Amino acid sequence: MAVRWYSTVIEARDHRALARWWAEALGWQTAFDTDEEVVLWPPWAQELGPKLPFHQVPPGLVFVPVGHDKQTKNRIHLDFAPHVDDDRDAEIERLLALGATRTDVGQGDGVTWDVLADPEGNEFCVLSSRDV
Amino acid sequence: MAVRWYSTVIEARDHRALARWWAEALGWQTAFDTDEEVVLWPPWAQELGPKLPFHQVPPGLVFVPVGHDKQTKNRIHLDFAPHVDDDRDAEIERLLALGATRTDVGQGDGVTWDVLADPEGNEFCVLSSRDV
Repeated sequence: MAVRWYSTVIEARDHRALARWWAEALGWQTAFDTDEEVVLWPPWAQELGPKLPFHQVPPGLVFVPVGHDKQTKNRIHLDFAPHVDDDRDAEIERLLALGATRTDVGQGDGVTWDVLADPEGNEFCVLSSRDV
Repeated sequence: MAVRWYSTVIEARDHRALARWWAEALGWQTAFDTDEEVVLWPPWAQELGPKLPFHQVPPGLVFVPVGHDKQTKNRIHLDFAPHVDDDRDAEIERLLALGATRTDVGQGDGVTWDVLADPEGNEFCVLSSRDV
Protein backbone atom coordinates (compact mmCIF):
# COMPACT_ATOMS: atom_id res chain seq x y z
CA MET A 1 0.00 0.00 0.00
CA ALA A 2 1.34 3.38 -0.95
CA VAL A 3 1.64 6.34 1.36
CA ARG A 4 -1.20 8.80 1.89
CA TRP A 5 -0.86 12.40 0.70
CA TYR A 6 -1.09 13.91 4.14
CA SER A 7 -0.55 17.61 3.57
CA THR A 8 0.89 20.36 1.45
CA VAL A 9 3.43 22.28 3.51
CA ILE A 10 4.10 25.99 3.03
CA GLU A 11 7.19 27.59 4.52
CA ALA A 12 6.57 31.05 5.91
CA ARG A 13 8.34 33.97 7.54
CA ASP A 14 5.38 34.20 9.92
CA HIS A 15 3.72 30.81 9.83
CA ARG A 16 0.94 31.79 12.24
CA ALA A 17 -0.02 34.91 10.30
CA LEU A 18 0.06 33.12 6.96
CA ALA A 19 -2.00 30.23 8.34
CA ARG A 20 -4.57 32.69 9.68
CA TRP A 21 -4.71 34.29 6.27
CA TRP A 22 -5.34 31.01 4.48
CA ALA A 23 -7.87 29.89 7.07
CA GLU A 24 -9.84 33.04 6.34
CA ALA A 25 -9.35 32.75 2.59
CA LEU A 26 -10.58 29.15 2.44
CA GLY A 27 -12.97 29.07 5.38
CA TRP A 28 -10.81 26.36 6.96
CA GLN A 29 -10.16 25.68 10.63
CA THR A 30 -7.00 25.50 12.71
CA ALA A 31 -6.47 21.92 13.82
CA PHE A 32 -3.08 22.40 15.46
CA ASP A 33 -1.04 25.46 16.39
CA THR A 34 2.51 25.39 17.76
CA ASP A 35 5.76 27.31 17.32
CA GLU A 36 6.80 24.61 14.83
CA GLU A 37 3.69 24.37 12.68
CA VAL A 38 0.10 25.37 12.17
CA VAL A 39 -2.20 22.79 10.58
CA LEU A 40 -5.38 23.76 8.76
CA TRP A 41 -8.27 21.41 8.06
CA PRO A 42 -11.43 21.99 6.10
CA PRO A 43 -14.52 22.41 8.28
CA TRP A 44 -15.86 19.01 7.27
CA ALA A 45 -12.69 17.14 8.31
CA GLN A 46 -13.87 16.25 11.79
CA GLU A 47 -17.09 14.74 10.53
CA LEU A 48 -15.91 13.27 7.27
CA GLY A 49 -12.39 12.14 8.18
CA PRO A 50 -13.25 9.34 10.63
CA LYS A 51 -15.73 7.84 8.14
CA LEU A 52 -13.13 7.49 5.42
CA PRO A 53 -10.46 4.83 4.99
CA PHE A 54 -7.04 6.14 5.99
CA HIS A 55 -5.82 6.76 2.44
CA GLN A 56 -8.97 8.62 1.41
CA VAL A 57 -8.78 11.35 4.05
CA PRO A 58 -8.01 14.55 2.14
CA PRO A 59 -4.78 16.43 2.79
CA GLY A 60 -4.46 19.42 5.07
CA LEU A 61 -2.42 22.58 4.73
CA VAL A 62 0.56 23.02 7.03
CA PHE A 63 2.53 26.21 7.67
CA VAL A 64 6.06 25.98 9.05
CA PRO A 65 8.39 28.82 10.01
CA VAL A 66 11.58 29.59 8.10
CA GLY A 67 14.06 32.43 8.50
CA HIS A 68 14.15 33.61 4.92
CA ASP A 69 11.80 35.22 2.44
CA LYS A 70 10.54 33.53 -0.68
CA GLN A 71 13.29 33.83 -3.31
CA THR A 72 11.88 32.79 -6.68
CA LYS A 73 8.61 31.86 -8.32
CA ASN A 74 7.44 28.74 -6.55
CA ARG A 75 7.95 25.46 -8.40
CA ILE A 76 4.84 24.14 -6.65
CA HIS A 77 1.63 26.12 -6.23
CA LEU A 78 -2.00 25.65 -5.30
CA ASP A 79 -5.00 25.96 -7.60
CA PHE A 80 -8.48 26.84 -6.38
CA ALA A 81 -11.82 26.83 -8.12
CA PRO A 82 -15.15 28.48 -7.43
CA HIS A 83 -18.39 26.59 -7.89
CA VAL A 84 -20.54 27.69 -10.83
CA ASP A 85 -23.18 28.87 -8.37
CA ASP A 86 -20.69 31.18 -6.69
CA ASP A 87 -19.78 34.65 -7.91
CA ARG A 88 -16.23 34.16 -9.18
CA ASP A 89 -15.45 37.88 -9.54
CA ALA A 90 -16.72 38.57 -6.04
CA GLU A 91 -14.60 35.74 -4.70
CA ILE A 92 -11.47 37.18 -6.31
CA GLU A 93 -12.35 40.61 -4.94
CA ARG A 94 -12.75 39.06 -1.50
CA LEU A 95 -9.29 37.48 -1.71
CA LEU A 96 -7.78 40.78 -2.88
CA ALA A 97 -9.50 42.61 -0.05
CA LEU A 98 -8.01 40.10 2.40
CA GLY A 99 -4.53 40.97 1.16
CA ALA A 100 -3.90 38.84 -1.92
CA THR A 101 -2.23 40.58 -4.84
CA ARG A 102 -2.43 40.02 -8.56
CA THR A 103 0.82 38.72 -9.93
CA ASP A 104 2.32 38.16 -13.37
CA VAL A 105 3.96 34.80 -13.93
CA GLY A 106 3.86 35.17 -17.69
CA GLN A 107 0.36 33.80 -17.99
CA GLY A 108 -0.49 36.25 -20.78
CA ASP A 109 -3.94 37.41 -21.75
CA GLY A 110 -6.89 35.23 -22.43
CA VAL A 111 -6.19 32.44 -19.97
CA THR A 112 -9.16 31.17 -17.99
CA TRP A 113 -7.48 31.57 -14.61
CA ASP A 114 -6.36 34.47 -12.46
CA VAL A 115 -2.96 34.41 -10.80
CA LEU A 116 -2.80 35.86 -7.29
CA ALA A 117 -0.24 35.74 -4.51
CA ASP A 118 -0.76 35.38 -0.78
CA PRO A 119 0.73 37.93 1.67
CA GLU A 120 4.12 36.17 1.58
CA GLY A 121 4.15 36.12 -2.22
CA ASN A 122 3.17 32.49 -2.83
CA GLU A 123 1.50 32.34 -6.22
CA PHE A 124 -1.86 30.61 -6.51
CA CYS A 125 -4.48 30.39 -9.22
CA VAL A 126 -8.21 30.90 -9.18
CA LEU A 127 -9.48 28.65 -11.95
CA SER A 128 -12.65 28.99 -13.96
CA SER A 129 -15.90 28.20 -12.19
CA ARG A 130 -17.04 24.57 -12.40
CA ASP A 131 -19.39 22.09 -10.85
CA VAL A 132 -17.16 19.03 -10.60
CA MET B 1 -18.69 30.50 -0.16
CA ALA B 2 -14.94 30.19 -0.46
CA VAL B 3 -13.09 28.55 -3.30
CA ARG B 4 -12.28 24.84 -3.32
CA TRP B 5 -8.69 23.67 -3.12
CA TYR B 6 -8.67 22.01 -6.50
CA SER B 7 -5.10 20.82 -6.93
CA THR B 8 -1.46 21.18 -6.06
CA VAL B 9 0.47 22.00 -9.20
CA ILE B 10 4.06 20.89 -9.78
CA GLU B 11 6.15 22.44 -12.54
CA ALA B 12 8.37 19.97 -14.34
CA ARG B 13 11.00 19.74 -17.04
CA ASP B 14 9.21 16.61 -18.25
CA HIS B 15 5.69 16.83 -16.89
CA ARG B 16 4.59 13.49 -18.34
CA ALA B 17 7.55 11.59 -16.91
CA LEU B 18 7.20 13.21 -13.49
CA ALA B 19 3.46 12.55 -13.44
CA ARG B 20 4.08 8.90 -14.31
CA TRP B 21 6.56 8.72 -11.47
CA TRP B 22 4.12 10.13 -8.92
CA ALA B 23 1.29 7.96 -10.19
CA GLU B 24 3.44 4.93 -9.51
CA ALA B 25 4.68 6.28 -6.19
CA LEU B 26 1.17 6.98 -4.88
CA GLY B 27 -0.86 4.36 -6.72
CA TRP B 28 -2.84 7.17 -8.36
CA GLN B 29 -4.43 7.28 -11.80
CA THR B 30 -4.03 9.63 -14.75
CA ALA B 31 -7.25 11.56 -15.19
CA PHE B 32 -6.08 13.88 -17.95
CA ASP B 33 -2.98 13.96 -20.16
CA THR B 34 -2.12 16.74 -22.59
CA ASP B 35 0.95 18.67 -23.70
CA GLU B 36 -0.10 21.39 -21.22
CA GLU B 37 -0.79 19.29 -18.13
CA VAL B 38 -1.18 15.85 -16.65
CA VAL B 39 -3.73 15.47 -13.86
CA LEU B 40 -3.54 12.67 -11.32
CA TRP B 41 -6.45 11.47 -9.19
CA PRO B 42 -6.53 8.92 -6.44
CA PRO B 43 -8.13 5.62 -7.48
CA TRP B 44 -11.22 6.32 -5.39
CA ALA B 45 -11.92 9.71 -7.03
CA GLN B 46 -14.33 8.40 -9.63
CA GLU B 47 -16.45 6.63 -7.04
CA LEU B 48 -16.13 9.03 -4.16
CA GLY B 49 -16.04 12.39 -5.96
CA PRO B 50 -19.58 12.47 -7.33
CA LYS B 51 -20.98 11.60 -3.88
CA LEU B 52 -19.32 14.56 -2.19
CA PRO B 53 -20.39 18.19 -2.15
CA PHE B 54 -18.25 20.27 -4.53
CA HIS B 55 -16.03 21.76 -1.83
CA GLN B 56 -15.34 18.39 -0.19
CA VAL B 57 -13.85 16.70 -3.25
CA PRO B 58 -10.16 16.22 -2.42
CA PRO B 59 -7.51 17.95 -4.52
CA GLY B 60 -5.61 16.30 -7.34
CA LEU B 61 -2.00 16.60 -8.39
CA VAL B 62 -1.23 18.46 -11.60
CA PHE B 63 2.04 18.48 -13.54
CA VAL B 64 2.76 21.31 -15.95
CA PRO B 65 5.77 21.73 -18.25
CA VAL B 66 8.34 24.48 -17.73
CA GLY B 67 11.60 25.17 -19.56
CA HIS B 68 13.88 25.42 -16.57
CA ASP B 69 15.18 23.17 -13.82
CA LYS B 70 14.30 23.55 -10.17
CA GLN B 71 16.55 26.30 -8.77
CA THR B 72 16.27 26.29 -4.99
CA LYS B 73 14.76 24.29 -2.17
CA ASN B 74 11.03 24.43 -2.74
CA ARG B 75 9.05 26.82 -0.54
CA ILE B 76 6.09 24.43 -0.79
CA HIS B 77 6.39 20.66 -0.49
CA LEU B 78 4.24 17.60 0.01
CA ASP B 79 4.09 15.37 3.08
CA PHE B 80 3.06 11.73 2.96
CA ALA B 81 2.33 9.25 5.72
CA PRO B 82 2.18 5.47 5.87
CA HIS B 83 -0.55 3.72 7.80
CA VAL B 84 0.54 1.98 11.00
CA ASP B 85 -0.32 -1.37 9.41
CA ASP B 86 2.06 -0.71 6.54
CA ASP B 87 5.79 -1.33 6.62
CA ARG B 88 7.21 2.20 6.63
CA ASP B 89 10.80 1.15 5.94
CA ALA B 90 9.68 -0.98 3.02
CA GLU B 91 7.65 1.91 1.66
CA ILE B 92 10.67 4.22 1.76
CA GLU B 93 12.79 1.54 0.09
CA ARG B 94 10.12 1.21 -2.60
CA LEU B 95 10.21 4.97 -3.26
CA LEU B 96 14.02 4.93 -3.41
CA ALA B 97 13.94 1.98 -5.80
CA LEU B 98 11.55 3.95 -8.01
CA GLY B 99 14.08 6.76 -8.25
CA ALA B 100 13.56 8.97 -5.21
CA THR B 101 16.70 10.16 -3.47
CA ARG B 102 17.41 11.03 0.13
CA THR B 103 18.07 14.74 0.54
CA ASP B 104 19.36 16.98 3.30
CA VAL B 105 17.34 20.12 3.95
CA GLY B 106 18.92 20.63 7.35
CA GLN B 107 16.47 18.37 9.10
CA GLY B 108 19.16 17.06 11.44
CA ASP B 109 19.13 13.76 13.27
CA GLY B 110 16.32 12.42 15.37
CA VAL B 111 13.38 13.85 13.48
CA THR B 112 10.45 11.52 12.92
CA TRP B 113 10.29 12.04 9.17
CA ASP B 114 12.48 11.17 6.21
CA VAL B 115 13.21 13.74 3.52
CA LEU B 116 13.30 12.45 -0.03
CA ALA B 117 13.25 14.10 -3.44
CA ASP B 118 11.46 13.05 -6.60
CA PRO B 119 13.38 12.58 -9.88
CA GLU B 120 13.26 16.34 -10.59
CA GLY B 121 14.51 17.19 -7.12
CA ASN B 122 11.25 18.21 -5.47
CA GLU B 123 11.62 17.57 -1.76
CA PHE B 124 8.92 15.60 0.03
CA CYS B 125 8.64 14.03 3.46
CA VAL B 126 7.57 10.60 4.58
CA LEU B 127 6.11 11.18 8.03
CA SER B 128 5.84 8.73 10.89
CA SER B 129 3.26 5.96 10.54
CA ARG B 130 -0.18 6.78 11.87
CA ASP B 131 -3.78 5.62 11.80
CA VAL B 132 -5.58 8.95 11.46
